[in-house]
Amino acid sequence: MSSGPTLAIVGATGAVGTVMIDIINNRGSVPWGEIRLIASPRSAGKKITVRGEDNTVVALAPEAFDGVDIALFDVPDEVSAEWAPIAHSRGAIAVDNSGAFRMDPEVPLVVPEVNPEKVHERPKGIIANPNCTTLSMMAALGALHREFGLRELVVSSYQAASGAGQDGIDRLYAELEAVAGKQVGVRGGDVADALAAAGLSAETPFKAPLALNVVPWAGSRKDDGWTSEELKVRNESRKILGIPELKVSATCVRVPVLTTHSLAVHATFEREVSVEKAHKLFSDQPTIVLDDDHDNEVFPTPAAVVGGDPTHVGRVRQALDFPNTLDFFVCGDNLRKGAALNTYEIAETLAK
Amino acid sequence: MSSGPTLAIVGATGAVGTVMIDIINNRGSVPWGEIRLIASPRSAGKKITVRGEDNTVVALAPEAFDGVDIALFDVPDEVSAEWAPIAHSRGAIAVDNSGAFRMDPEVPLVVPEVNPEKVHERPKGIIANPNCTTLSMMAALGALHREFGLRELVVSSYQAASGAGQDGIDRLYAELEAVAGKQVGVRGGDVADALAAAGLSAETPFKAPLALNVVPWAGSRKDDGWTSEELKVRNESRKILGIPELKVSATCVRVPVLTTHSLAVHATFEREVSVEKAHKLFSDQPTIVLDDDHDNEVFPTPAAVVGGDPTHVGRVRQALDFPNTLDFFVCGDNLRKGAALNTYEIAETLAK
Repeated sequence: MSSGPTLAIVGATGAVGTVMIDIINNRGSVPWGEIRLIASPRSAGKKITVRGEDNTVVALAPEAFDGVDIALFDVPDEVSAEWAPIAHSRGAIAVDNSGAFRMDPEVPLVVPEVNPEKVHERPKGIIANPNCTTLSMMAALGALHREFGLRELVVSSYQAASGAGQDGIDRLYAELEAVAGKQVGVRGGDVADALAAAGLSAETPFKAPLALNVVPWAGSRKDDGWTSEELKVRNESRKILGIPELKVSATCVRVPVLTTHSLAVHATFEREVSVEKAHKLFSDQPTIVLDDDHDNEVFPTPAAVVGGDPTHVGRVRQALDFPNTLDFFVCGDNLRKGAALNTYEIAETLAK
Repeated sequence: MSSGPTLAIVGATGAVGTVMIDIINNRGSVPWGEIRLIASPRSAGKKITVRGEDNTVVALAPEAFDGVDIALFDVPDEVSAEWAPIAHSRGAIAVDNSGAFRMDPEVPLVVPEVNPEKVHERPKGIIANPNCTTLSMMAALGALHREFGLRELVVSSYQAASGAGQDGIDRLYAELEAVAGKQVGVRGGDVADALAAAGLSAETPFKAPLALNVVPWAGSRKDDGWTSEELKVRNESRKILGIPELKVSATCVRVPVLTTHSLAVHATFEREVSVEKAHKLFSDQPTIVLDDDHDNEVFPTPAAVVGGDPTHVGRVRQALDFPNTLDFFVCGDNLRKGAALNTYEIAETLAK
């Protein structure tokens, strides 16, 4: 075992925890000594291969954090709210992917390409990982903001089913089987009828059929007509980019895609922009792939980019009627950069 | 046979022509005397039931327009470009749903809820019907514009497969069958692999897989990174609403929905707005259904509203950071209000 810092993964057996382990196993070199897998008591004792060796999952308990330097959390909000401070009290820095601490002024919200220096300002010993929708566009917006000075953001999302977890994935697969071969979608309600005929419950993580449909609702109900997901895009973008007065309007829409969120972004800047300069900024950013060759009709789509680490950007256009404004389309894997990868990259930034 | 004006439907056997006949057959009363069905020579002689009687399709020819007062066209651009003037030379007013005349300054572009008076300004004897994407939001924007004075528009679309015609419908159904039960969509390219394994051609009306995907491309390639569909939203909105200086940015995205286009609209006005006033304007407009009850999480989706005439509007919010600005989501059947219905309503407006 190497002599590097000890890393814990809390929620190691979940969807995002599994991707974290996958990232570690596929990274050429990692800075860690011990890697400790932590999960609920019912998963304790399970063996998972990490760096070629069996690693036995331990149950979440205060003493599980003894000797841990950095603990990655991917657990429900209320579990993080209780256990991240306990991890800190045992000497660990907690990097949390729940919504529990993101807007806490004493907790930095970090995207390593944008504000890596914030990992050192953590009075509570906790660092938060952003919401996956916000994260999908942050590498791109961070690069543009440094050059042009971001002022306004109008965003529409095309969000994948896996943003609603394994239930969301299972539901979309089941709905696709229920509608395939049925020639539905041409009369109001016949998609819903096909789902009911296939025995699917009217209870769904999406509040409406998702197969052959789009659902303009993500997250929970907030004041004045907004959803939690839309307010996260606004509040987290402001905090990560360090622009408290950033103007933001977001409309968050679920689409029948398994994994990878896409966003149509209309971004207005303080200074003059050009597509050429934006292309260069994107190309210079190692975590961005530029899929933008208009003459050959090349653009990113979620089904093409899913499973990879980079954010893909394309359809970059200078707005015809809005000064200093770019329109573009961005696709990022919501389980990787949107969750496991960024959380892990925060830990790597700390380990440096 | 009644003594009203004679109506011709050119392209009577096509997808939109079929909906036009369906609209006539389901309308309580119509102002027409003779209804003449016109199509390509290979469809001539076919019998279609109109108002309970067999009606024999006649071949497109100059003399087919003799005695016709109003001719509805739903045919390809080049066919309209040639034949609408011929219809006019034979005494008919042509109402055309192709792109051939929409931006012609001597041809009005009409949405009866917005600019019905323009039907009388037709020096070429031709009236144009707007593109389906633009049309989906026009009833809503027209109502808001009259009250608040529209200035800026940022739009992202969620466009249905049937916008690409019967080929688009057939392709999406075939793709759904190819991916259903396959658990694909989690690795880049595996949706494309599933389509290839099912024997589907790589040639598609959508330029990329549409099942389990979204495609940020609709229409043809235009200058400076834009697509034809995005420029139509800009140019046609300006012309219909009569606001030549309207600022517009649109991103047009195809989604795996069969029929009914949806749009996320961010609209900025000259005067102060409120959700309450917007709700009243929408409720007062007979061709709009307001699906917006935030407390009960009621919103429109394409699968719920397809097959109906009205535009459905919901998720109406006052922008938090942009003055005089509303965000909302709108769904409209692209084959009905987006095509056949609006064209027919122009004819009814003329007949009054």
